[in-house]
Amino acid sequence: MNAQDCLNMLREIRDVAFATVDADGRPHNRIIDVMIVENEKLYFCTARGKDFYKELIANPNVAITGLNQNWQAVRLTGEAKRITEDHDQWIDRIFEENPSMNGVYPGDARYILDPFVIDAGQLECFDLSSHPIHREYFTFGAEKDVQTPGFLITDSCIECGTCQSVCPQNAIEADSPYRIRQDACLHCGLCYENCPVSCIVRRDEN
Amino acid sequence: MNAQDCLNMLREIRDVAFATVDADGRPHNRIIDVMIVENEKLYFCTARGKDFYKELIANPNVAITGLNQNWQAVRLTGEAKRITEDHDQWIDRIFEENPSMNGVYPGDARYILDPFVIDAGQLECFDLSSHPIHREYFTFGAEKDVQTPGFLITDSCIECGTCQSVCPQNAIEADSPYRIRQDACLHCGLCYENCPVSCIVRRDEN
Repeated sequence: MNAQDCLNMLREIRDVAFATVDADGRPHNRIIDVMIVENEKLYFCTARGKDFYKELIANPNVAITGLNQNWQAVRLTGEAKRITEDHDQWIDRIFEENPSMNGVYPGDARYILDPFVIDAGQLECFDLSSHPIHREYFTFGAEKDVQTPGFLITDSCIECGTCQSVCPQNAIEADSPYRIRQDACLHCGLCYENCPVSCIVRRDEN
Repeated sequence: MNAQDCLNMLREIRDVAFATVDADGRPHNRIIDVMIVENEKLYFCTARGKDFYKELIANPNVAITGLNQNWQAVRLTGEAKRITEDHDQWIDRIFEENPSMNGVYPGDARYILDPFVIDAGQLECFDLSSHPIHREYFTFGAEKDVQTPGFLITDSCIECGTCQSVCPQNAIEADSPYRIRQDACLHCGLCYENCPVSCIVRRDEN
């Protein structure tokens, strides 16, 4: 798996959820089609009259998620940029590759849509069908910093094995210190809550 | 259709997208199971170690969306409240009605989950399979104010018919003034952009 694979999965799911934040700081979420994925870029479009459009222009931060039929979920966070050059050509290409759009926006109505691209961000692929679960993080484009949620067992570990015994995914290895297999971790917090010496910390606070 | 029908649709879709806003004002989006819907309330749960949990406690505003196999999308905005009474009984009931949860959180691991309820908010049902499209808004619980996106033709209308001719969904009736059938409107903005006397306004700015 790599970032392009995750983006391809979003394109295959096609109808994915796009979240934005409005001027009052509240989230909004709607189903949007992923129109084109290529060269680690994701393209979509929306009409200039929609609240979604207004929110994107005021605050380009988006969070996308979708689930395929194999119980694999993809999550993306990044910034959506409006494409200002070659507007009509982009819309024409989007309609060519997604002909069902003509049913909603027939004829020249298509040009009320503006094209957007997400060319940098973070991706997570989460496979709930495997046991233990499997997750991986990727960045694409200029985005280099990966946010790392979840937990870490620090050197204060007394190797008592409590964390290993409570982990619902058997994602903890007996080691010195004990070690969380991050790719199998639910981030549920059971190890964190049950460690008798509080040696487990949040990765993003470490 | 009513609010309960929309909530039932989210329960039937079951794996829906939940958006939250983090401490930096950025959106996050992930697939979450709708666990119980009854009496115009929607129940879900999440583990205390997750970023999702942290975000919900700090900012209870959520936006949910899901799409069923008949191309009907439901959107919900509201506040998620953590259920503090009868914690274990709620989790037990959730697992009883959603037995596949035992595969992810076997045995007592389930109690790392906290139950949440959304008992008030706004709903939109959007049917993309009908032509023209069909949308309806509902509120549930204590939420009484419906946000009304989209456009309105004001009394300055000169009845030229331009808006009607450009509408991709034939959602505008010749009347005095011309009238948008709100339940068939895409909110695309073509009428708004093309009105020669700028008599069309955003409903939420009127």
